[in-house]
Amino acid sequence: MLDLTQAVPGYPPHPELVRHLSAGAAEAASYGYGNITGDLALRERYAAEVSALYAGTVGPDEVAITTGANMASFAVTMLLARSGDTVMLPVPWYFNHQMNAGLLGIGVVPLPCRAENGFVPDPAEAEGLVGPGTRAVLLVTPNNPTGAVYPAAVIQAFADLCRRRGLWLILDETYREFRADGGAPPHDLFREPWQEHVIQLCSFSKSYCVPGFRAGAVVAGAGLMPELTKILDCLQICAPRVTQAGLAWAIDALRGWREGNRALMAGRAAACRRAFAGLEGWKVDAQGAYFAYLRHPFPERSSWQVAEALAVERGLIALPGAAFGPGQDRYLRLAFANVDEAGIVEAARRLAEA
Amino acid sequence: MLDLTQAVPGYPPHPELVRHLSAGAAEAASYGYGNITGDLALRERYAAEVSALYAGTVGPDEVAITTGANMASFAVTMLLARSGDTVMLPVPWYFNHQMNAGLLGIGVVPLPCRAENGFVPDPAEAEGLVGPGTRAVLLVTPNNPTGAVYPAAVIQAFADLCRRRGLWLILDETYREFRADGGAPPHDLFREPWQEHVIQLCSFSKSYCVPGFRAGAVVAGAGLMPELTKILDCLQICAPRVTQAGLAWAIDALRGWREGNRALMAGRAAACRRAFAGLEGWKVDAQGAYFAYLRHPFPERSSWQVAEALAVERGLIALPGAAFGPGQDRYLRLAFANVDEAGIVEAARRLAEA
Repeated sequence: MLDLTQAVPGYPPHPELVRHLSAGAAEAASYGYGNITGDLALRERYAAEVSALYAGTVGPDEVAITTGANMASFAVTMLLARSGDTVMLPVPWYFNHQMNAGLLGIGVVPLPCRAENGFVPDPAEAEGLVGPGTRAVLLVTPNNPTGAVYPAAVIQAFADLCRRRGLWLILDETYREFRADGGAPPHDLFREPWQEHVIQLCSFSKSYCVPGFRAGAVVAGAGLMPELTKILDCLQICAPRVTQAGLAWAIDALRGWREGNRALMAGRAAACRRAFAGLEGWKVDAQGAYFAYLRHPFPERSSWQVAEALAVERGLIALPGAAFGPGQDRYLRLAFANVDEAGIVEAARRLAEA
Repeated sequence: MLDLTQAVPGYPPHPELVRHLSAGAAEAASYGYGNITGDLALRERYAAEVSALYAGTVGPDEVAITTGANMASFAVTMLLARSGDTVMLPVPWYFNHQMNAGLLGIGVVPLPCRAENGFVPDPAEAEGLVGPGTRAVLLVTPNNPTGAVYPAAVIQAFADLCRRRGLWLILDETYREFRADGGAPPHDLFREPWQEHVIQLCSFSKSYCVPGFRAGAVVAGAGLMPELTKILDCLQICAPRVTQAGLAWAIDALRGWREGNRALMAGRAAACRRAFAGLEGWKVDAQGAYFAYLRHPFPERSSWQVAEALAVERGLIALPGAAFGPGQDRYLRLAFANVDEAGIVEAARRLAEA
């Protein structure tokens, strides 16, 4: 079985992080409750990291640590909208974002993305879809499921739209460390006052390879924190302390290692591009950090049927496009970052045979 | 400062649990994602423990592990009610239960509890308060904040009411290990078919002294699990794996240690009864596992004012009754379990001076 479904790095965490987590688990501080929005040490390091990466200004009081990025997304959706309101999501979407809204009685305004635009959404089209109950636009960049990395100018245009229309721009940047151009800021939003219209979500799971330790982060203006704190008190009381202590150490200490992983992932992306270029019938319509969004050659079959046949007949597991929203039945999502370059070549071989 | 506020055991976790958590943090399984509703090893041990404690039948497919009991309560509230519905809560309530409902747009039907009944709610009175939108009754026993341990017959009457009226009985039994009569089943609900009207919540934080590792549990019928799983996927994806592995070991291995802690807590409860009996003006109106609910002698002052004066003038920190709902301004909650017997005597001395 070649598993290209769940987004988990195909390499282990750094052994020094493992040592820190193991030692931290024996520290008295790890047993006790902590600050609702996260331990100060981690918030300080993370705020500094975000400020440096975006050449902008984010302070520790503008960071909340959550028990994973899914909780971050749920809490922020709850913070900004209520039952009957709407949130705009580009299609295809990350299914948990749509589920969060659905669970809270919040409507979803689908914003179509198109293969001919590399699945990058259009801010002008978004503006035409804003309704009276729309509270936020949620973008995932680098995107899950398509892999598309949104240009900084597009992100800026969405931020301007949100500021102008009194909406919130929620940016889920869980995969930002795996952009091929890792050095450049993904956008310029944090260089100007952002606190009144931008919220950023991120995950530590992918970058540090510790999803089972559960940690994510929200960057939001200090004015939102009192209300976000109430929500996080109900959801988590505090994020796991041992995880927070380990990550507070890792942010600075493992910067070089993470840079190496980014290069490794860029290599896998290139291998993916090469391996899939010559496939007859199959077409990569978008690809970037972590994921490739693959158009299959069976228009008469649903993406679930294609995914099932690939799994059963070829031992290749990918997620069907239909899991990511309406109109996605011609697609499969491949988390190519999960496997090494030989695995990518083998995946292409199995697709060619299918 | 004598801190009788947050409910945290005043002794450390067992050193062998610390060793297991530390070793577990270095295991590859701890890094990866796990089952949404919890790892099978922990669900099996916990189901067996609950079945034995209640002389009833609960299976591993009827257990979901959550990132703390607050999340369990939030998820179950979300599962059973939606915006506009109501949930009945005895007053005084545990504030997070009320906050959960408020955040979700769910109304709260207050069920008054009275000092003359030891703050045990009356099922007949509850039945008269059931409205057309009422979906559930949530009881906390042993109670937070009053400490009252509800008699099995009262719990049974609430379960019968819920079955008869098509409601759910949610039982939060976070403090059950600290009942003075720890051996007897707290109630008989699990001895008969319970899956269609009973849901139980519990926490591992208090019993194992590891709140910072975050783990709670839901016991619910297998028929509810598919929907509960969707909610938990959005909130947590999975509970921290290292915590789950440690607790799977601890449930059986630390039974004797937990029994010793129960005896220790019973000793503190007795010390509390002795120390507070002779206090002029102050009156313990309810007391049981973990908490005493103390009536203060200053009718002209709010509980916030009394709590502040005690903290500032006497170095004794307790939570004001008003934090636990309407009509509680004559009370303070003392988490006497946090301090040893000398601390309890000292607390009584400071109250006497106030």
